[in-house]
Amino acid sequence: MNGGDGPSSYARNSSYQRGAIDAAEALLRKEIYQRLDLTDHSFSSFTIADFGCSSGPNTLLAVDIIIQTLLHKFSSSMPNAKTPEFQVFFNDLPQTDFNSLFALLPPQRPYFVAGVPGSFYGNLFPKAYLNLAYSSCALCWLSDLPHEIRDTTSPAYNKGRIHYTGASAEVAQAYSCQYKKDIKSFLCARSRELAEDGLMALIVPGVPDGFLDSQASTGSEFDLLGSCLMDMARERRIKEEDVDSFNLPIYYTTPKELEDIIRSNGELKLEKMETLEGIYAYDTMPDLESRVQYLRAVLEGLIRSHFGHHILDDLFDRYSLKLAQSSFILNPQTHKSIMIFTLLTRRRYI
Amino acid sequence: MNGGDGPSSYARNSSYQRGAIDAAEALLRKEIYQRLDLTDHSFSSFTIADFGCSSGPNTLLAVDIIIQTLLHKFSSSMPNAKTPEFQVFFNDLPQTDFNSLFALLPPQRPYFVAGVPGSFYGNLFPKAYLNLAYSSCALCWLSDLPHEIRDTTSPAYNKGRIHYTGASAEVAQAYSCQYKKDIKSFLCARSRELAEDGLMALIVPGVPDGFLDSQASTGSEFDLLGSCLMDMARERRIKEEDVDSFNLPIYYTTPKELEDIIRSNGELKLEKMETLEGIYAYDTMPDLESRVQYLRAVLEGLIRSHFGHHILDDLFDRYSLKLAQSSFILNPQTHKSIMIFTLLTRRRYI
Repeated sequence: MNGGDGPSSYARNSSYQRGAIDAAEALLRKEIYQRLDLTDHSFSSFTIADFGCSSGPNTLLAVDIIIQTLLHKFSSSMPNAKTPEFQVFFNDLPQTDFNSLFALLPPQRPYFVAGVPGSFYGNLFPKAYLNLAYSSCALCWLSDLPHEIRDTTSPAYNKGRIHYTGASAEVAQAYSCQYKKDIKSFLCARSRELAEDGLMALIVPGVPDGFLDSQASTGSEFDLLGSCLMDMARERRIKEEDVDSFNLPIYYTTPKELEDIIRSNGELKLEKMETLEGIYAYDTMPDLESRVQYLRAVLEGLIRSHFGHHILDDLFDRYSLKLAQSSFILNPQTHKSIMIFTLLTRRRYI
Repeated sequence: MNGGDGPSSYARNSSYQRGAIDAAEALLRKEIYQRLDLTDHSFSSFTIADFGCSSGPNTLLAVDIIIQTLLHKFSSSMPNAKTPEFQVFFNDLPQTDFNSLFALLPPQRPYFVAGVPGSFYGNLFPKAYLNLAYSSCALCWLSDLPHEIRDTTSPAYNKGRIHYTGASAEVAQAYSCQYKKDIKSFLCARSRELAEDGLMALIVPGVPDGFLDSQASTGSEFDLLGSCLMDMARERRIKEEDVDSFNLPIYYTTPKELEDIIRSNGELKLEKMETLEGIYAYDTMPDLESRVQYLRAVLEGLIRSHFGHHILDDLFDRYSLKLAQSSFILNPQTHKSIMIFTLLTRRRYI
């Protein structure tokens, strides 16, 4: 994600992700309120972690919703007890712009703050430490690329493309395997870190059930960006092998696939899963420019570190032209992304 | 402090502060080992905070010493119990370069990490949260400048100078009052945050008892820097009133003064106070260039925000010339800075 708050920053180009939080708000409030069990607890402090927080105003928006809900829950369920002190941990990779995030923090806030650098596919907190874990729009980022897609001898070698959409079934399968492995690691780490009766709410970017089987026929923004890179390779502005070896570490699961992975983890109980309604890219990013800037804010860092910064303007100019000519991608009917809301509880420690 | 790891960064110009940690190491190990009371505890996790951590390798050095000592203590005092998981909180102001600090973290480390942005003169953690608090070379930074020194009608108005050394007794007095207020706030916040039987080790930059009374006759590096600014004002490169309104928010206490402030706090008990031996600027910064870069790394940010970045090279070139001509400051005999080691314990909650 692009740090800072410039025109191409993630902080200024994340209205789509904000849409996801807006769509989840009512459900998030209801589920936390109903399922948080305070029966056996005398909290002195209450710990909350946002996994994959990124750096921007959305991060604080979600925390506000959660804290408001908790304050309501504590005051109504334990009217005679002192409300605990809240401590919020913002987690993301060490290269995330934590300083920009810290600069956004309101000086007066009803919680203590800490930033936690590190991959959420590993352990980041002591055992049984967190009362509430949360993640929004982050569990589509793979910890690494599946190695087969860069292996020229493998049937999953992803030549001339930068993602699995539009590629062979073997490429999609390699991504899916990597995703399963990663989400299992995520759930394993969180099940260790969640306190007894701890809750975890996830908003996971995905596609509808059945999409993956038919994905070979769909175009996507990633395919369009990949075709721009291939155009540049044909014009010898970049090397074709650099495009072949560039792949996006992003995977969109389906509700069915995600449910299967969660159920295979014995320590977390799936309490709720539903697809959030009312999040459409054409609502939150109504014009071409915002669609281009969104993709740039999200992908620029990856492209820069693989190809160098000098190709960025040229690439996104080409992308912008192609997007304008594409009746397909900008058509609301073809928007297939969904957001999957999931609520999990920690089974009691035995 | 200058972030990043460039030639003027604090990370590359903090050998003096490293000297303080080296000089404190044996005492820190001994005091933590002897005074940490594990009798009534069954720790699941053990929390450590470094207040005013800054961003550089020194930060991790101190943590390594502390963690090694704790591992030794737990294994020898509770050989049959599982060693708790350690969680280290790095605190400094939000504008501190946390990303550079996070980039220095060793991938394999025996502790969890979080960065805590905020002033240590306020509360940063829930009540009774910390098992061990620590601060090195940070408790000389004031939370703010005493307002009198910028008030043209006050006897403490600090015209033509940037610090209290060499100034009138009223200026020194105004700094001293601000320091007392700040350290009281620091101790009040920490006494709330420290867990029962919690320890706090402080390495506080200071000057010997008696120094403040005679300071009017001493020259200092800050005075020299102030005289360079005044030279620039006389040459109309900067405005004289900008020099008059610029003052360093830095104060060096004496052991006696610090002891009095600590004793006025009823919740923390002073277990030990001594002056560390063997820290000399001429040992850790043997050449002129390292002395200049040290001051630049520490003060550049303050100067830039007051005067603008365009004066920096000119100012430090002038400073370098004056320092080379000064037989006084580079003479080891005139080095008056000391480091005061202090160990405090949290009185039991009643």
